[in-house]
Amino acid sequence: MQNLSPSSVWFTLFESVYTSGSVTPSGLRNRLCTTLRQAINSGALTPGQRLPSSRTLAADLQLSRITVEAAYAQIEAEGYLQRHTGKGTFVSLSLLPPAAPRKKLSVKANFSTLSARGRKIVDTGGCHDPGSPTAFAAGSPDLRAFPLKVWKQLTNQQLRIQGERLLGYGDPQGYLPLREALAGYLQQSRGVFCRAEHIMITTSSQQALQLLAMLLIDPADPVWVEQPGYPGARNAFTSAGANICPIAVDEQGLNPVSGLPVPRFIYLTPSHHYPTGVSLSLSRRLSLLDYAKRHGSWIIEDDYDSELHYDGRPLPAMQGLDKHQQVIYLGTFSKVLFPSLRLAYAVLPESLVGPMVTLRTVNDGHSSQLMQAVTAEFMQSGHFTSHLRFSRQLYHSRRDHLLEQIKQKIGWLTPQVAAGGLQLAAYLPTGQEQHLSALAAQAGVATPRLSPLFLQTKDFSAAQPLDGWLLGFSALASTEITAAVDRLASMKVRSTS
Amino acid sequence: MQNLSPSSVWFTLFESVYTSGSVTPSGLRNRLCTTLRQAINSGALTPGQRLPSSRTLAADLQLSRITVEAAYAQIEAEGYLQRHTGKGTFVSLSLLPPAAPRKKLSVKANFSTLSARGRKIVDTGGCHDPGSPTAFAAGSPDLRAFPLKVWKQLTNQQLRIQGERLLGYGDPQGYLPLREALAGYLQQSRGVFCRAEHIMITTSSQQALQLLAMLLIDPADPVWVEQPGYPGARNAFTSAGANICPIAVDEQGLNPVSGLPVPRFIYLTPSHHYPTGVSLSLSRRLSLLDYAKRHGSWIIEDDYDSELHYDGRPLPAMQGLDKHQQVIYLGTFSKVLFPSLRLAYAVLPESLVGPMVTLRTVNDGHSSQLMQAVTAEFMQSGHFTSHLRFSRQLYHSRRDHLLEQIKQKIGWLTPQVAAGGLQLAAYLPTGQEQHLSALAAQAGVATPRLSPLFLQTKDFSAAQPLDGWLLGFSALASTEITAAVDRLASMKVRSTS
Repeated sequence: MQNLSPSSVWFTLFESVYTSGSVTPSGLRNRLCTTLRQAINSGALTPGQRLPSSRTLAADLQLSRITVEAAYAQIEAEGYLQRHTGKGTFVSLSLLPPAAPRKKLSVKANFSTLSARGRKIVDTGGCHDPGSPTAFAAGSPDLRAFPLKVWKQLTNQQLRIQGERLLGYGDPQGYLPLREALAGYLQQSRGVFCRAEHIMITTSSQQALQLLAMLLIDPADPVWVEQPGYPGARNAFTSAGANICPIAVDEQGLNPVSGLPVPRFIYLTPSHHYPTGVSLSLSRRLSLLDYAKRHGSWIIEDDYDSELHYDGRPLPAMQGLDKHQQVIYLGTFSKVLFPSLRLAYAVLPESLVGPMVTLRTVNDGHSSQLMQAVTAEFMQSGHFTSHLRFSRQLYHSRRDHLLEQIKQKIGWLTPQVAAGGLQLAAYLPTGQEQHLSALAAQAGVATPRLSPLFLQTKDFSAAQPLDGWLLGFSALASTEITAAVDRLASMKVRSTS
Repeated sequence: MQNLSPSSVWFTLFESVYTSGSVTPSGLRNRLCTTLRQAINSGALTPGQRLPSSRTLAADLQLSRITVEAAYAQIEAEGYLQRHTGKGTFVSLSLLPPAAPRKKLSVKANFSTLSARGRKIVDTGGCHDPGSPTAFAAGSPDLRAFPLKVWKQLTNQQLRIQGERLLGYGDPQGYLPLREALAGYLQQSRGVFCRAEHIMITTSSQQALQLLAMLLIDPADPVWVEQPGYPGARNAFTSAGANICPIAVDEQGLNPVSGLPVPRFIYLTPSHHYPTGVSLSLSRRLSLLDYAKRHGSWIIEDDYDSELHYDGRPLPAMQGLDKHQQVIYLGTFSKVLFPSLRLAYAVLPESLVGPMVTLRTVNDGHSSQLMQAVTAEFMQSGHFTSHLRFSRQLYHSRRDHLLEQIKQKIGWLTPQVAAGGLQLAAYLPTGQEQHLSALAAQAGVATPRLSPLFLQTKDFSAAQPLDGWLLGFSALASTEITAAVDRLASMKVRSTS
């Protein structure tokens, strides 16, 4: 090929014209364009360099001349080439960096990288969803028990009835029939005072926490969290610059000492404290509400798995006790339907509805209308209640089975009876968490560790890390629980007395 | 009822026991519990007050005594009641606020409300998705043209093949088969250099912009945006505290003057500038890349609708020209599939992949696995390419029809020939935008205004607002376009000469 170095780079590039799939004329032309652009962009062809005539190139590449002409015309129009009648086709000189000699560019330019906020976010390490539902990954419902057939029927039904209406942009506050179904459900089953207009649909509790953090926290604002506590919430607050104050949890729940900085908000999991499962007592609820009122703090009530309560009925939501619209109530479908649904909800004090909806539009618009419509129908047609009832019975028996198995077979593990939820905390002899977790991993059993759920702190009278595990039972059949406990029981554990 | 004031409040509360739906014993018990809790929480029943005996209350309410006993036991367990054998049932004294006389609580407590950041976000007014697809709402594809039948088949197919695997937690970076399909598509059709590991799936371009803003911008960092430009991007950057620098756009695209502050990043819509449709010229692309390299700035290339190009082929993506991993490439399925799919993507420089994935876990976890799986299959099976080809032809003819209609019928409107996209800019006589928009609204025609897309500014040599409209044509059949133009043409417009 005249005026072109027959370098292997060039031939390698051209090979792409002949590889893969379709060979329509327009397909070939496009590939030739791509190849030429890449050759120019990569420096294999340099500004001012002459290209072969279309006739020569067509012969070399066994393409029709029309295809090559079309490709040249296309990338000439894009500014890559200049064609001069009688002289030939050249790589455009305008591609030379203006008024600077061409030089080898450094690949490692000195970029500014992340913002201070960005570095702080990366430093949190992020939030880790439960892995595959093997023993004892915590936090996932049993997806094998989900009524997928009904779900498919409702999906088809909604697409049939509503068609393209479900495909367009949606209400950033959430699909109204879903908010209505939720309002009824939350009032009836959780004692939450709300109407559809107080509810906002989000993709996850995590999103709700992130939005609230952005809306309510200025850098260095104090925020109270439970110690130990849910890392996802801490991470969201940290990413907004909050000053996180971990507060010890005892058998009645959060137990703030005096002298703590007045928080922007208090983050609570009152139904089943994450991770211990403790329920926040009524008198503590009332005194926290009173404190929040006197100090102008918000309360975030994360009611992430209260539907799955096994011993008696759960206490109604704290939100129902709130006379001053200070409680922001969060719930999710991830634990009671399925995580990849990406639907959760917040019940907001009236003054926050508008700001949160505005923020949602800036953040990511809205949630899938189809998924919301199917979920609304799933609730309205009674499937939700039956699935909840079924899950509750199933997980109840699994929790009991796990407790029983541990009691029978593992002397060094002290499980806590979680009154509900998808997992239970189990304590280990002091100083043994790392060692025993490594042994368990060798035995092929995942045992999420408890100590990372404690925030390292010196400033407050917060609890110090305890050794233990957070064992998920909800996604495991009884036989799987038995097998996993047997593997833990047969580990060669050092004497712990 | 003994010891209870027969106030209307009390009776009103109790009415709820008899209203609505099911009357199973457990349903009645739950309602009675709810009613009693509300009565206590609202202050209708006060701490220490005696409740009627279960026998009396059962008779009054025509309930079985077992139901009333069960309700009393339940809310006693919750801490609302105290029962003393032989004395009766009392509202718990522990509900009194500790060591403070009970007083009428103010409903308007003095809450701290939003953070400074929150107020700034609310002040942006948020981002507004296109309304219902009537003339001339801009920015929506024609959902009537979407192959919904194929989509339903693929949805059922994926649920059949993959079942519950699609229901669980997903990869925060995105479903791998979708990232692979996208990598092939973006290389082939847009000249983007990438592999699946550089791609991150988001719910929307807006989410990608928000995540990038959080990760890269510290308060007061300068960011260059196009003037006029996309408000969604500006809002995301504003919410992270950026110092927004609007830069004038001429017929070759962004035209920065000298003396501008070095930006953290430059936000561009190079294929079809939003809203004018201008394409950023090759030499401007190269000089912006050069500037960015020399100053350590990122470039965000928002390629939101380049697939829908009508006149010739679009220029390949700027990302393909980037030798230094400085360009962050964004694309979306909202314009080419459907908005409520909630899927978009970012092609990231290697150094940003890890931080962005971490941030996504803190922000909202991941996108729907089912939707990603169906989209991947839609691409792999060739439906994506055919739908794109079909949409391109359809919208091309609609654009031409709108231009033709305006030319024939409306002398005072000066449309710009957008080489692609879902809408076109049309200029109005100076000072007439508000007046003519009001007239159009009276005539039942939506005419999104151009001037709000200009940022008010004094600091830079940025363009000042122009009067005009941004007319969406993609979602309208030809007859709908004709009818809407006729309505505009018949408006009683003041002389504009």
